[in-house]
Amino acid sequence: MSEPSIFTKIINGDIPSHKIYEDERTLAFLDIHPAAEGHTLVIPKAEVEFVWDLSEEDYRALMATVQKVALRLREVTGKPYVGEMIVGTDVPHAHVHLVAFDQPQELKRTIEPSTAEPDHEALKIIADKLRFG
Amino acid sequence: MSEPSIFTKIINGDIPSHKIYEDERTLAFLDIHPAAEGHTLVIPKAEVEFVWDLSEEDYRALMATVQKVALRLREVTGKPYVGEMIVGTDVPHAHVHLVAFDQPQELKRTIEPSTAEPDHEALKIIADKLRFG
Repeated sequence: MSEPSIFTKIINGDIPSHKIYEDERTLAFLDIHPAAEGHTLVIPKAEVEFVWDLSEEDYRALMATVQKVALRLREVTGKPYVGEMIVGTDVPHAHVHLVAFDQPQELKRTIEPSTAEPDHEALKIIADKLRFG
Repeated sequence: MSEPSIFTKIINGDIPSHKIYEDERTLAFLDIHPAAEGHTLVIPKAEVEFVWDLSEEDYRALMATVQKVALRLREVTGKPYVGEMIVGTDVPHAHVHLVAFDQPQELKRTIEPSTAEPDHEALKIIADKLRFG
């Protein structure tokens, strides 16, 4: 068996994360290299490389969570726009980026690789605000 | 009553477009300023500004069409990746960008405004390949 993906390790709790929403089929947690404050990743629990190859049930559940989290991001951040990006070139486990923003240029940072040390204090503060009760 | 959006005019056939898929609730057609060949916009027929504010039925239908078209784009273009972007700052009618690509940097062009004259000949050729039978 191949090594579980980094996201499967997050799902299983083997790697810590700033979770904000979880249900039977999906999980949402903060990107540790945010393009903007509150940058969230929404993933299926099924370990499938590309969003497009998910089963109908998993895809529908993923997108339902995306809508929920996008509305939450808009409410909590007060930003006018919430952008979504699916890229799929980095981690071989399907994931959707959600970024609340003022200017569309901010979205470009989603595809800039970052090696900066994550600011877990700042991440914890925004995760506590975004987390579903 | 306010003026219908440019996308509502496309839905109604008042503005021509390179359509590739249509059902009761959604429409997919080519972006006339493609970030890459086959760059498609998927829209709900309901005139709602943001994807996040669509009704559950319209949102689900939109995302189902997005998955269909993404798989089709991958098959027809032969590209390894299909990216998705929701931005929402340009046209006040919800829309999802789908771009088949080799390198993630190509996605950045999705948010670069373009005033170039559309190449309708080239758009027609790829639309004919992508169109659902």
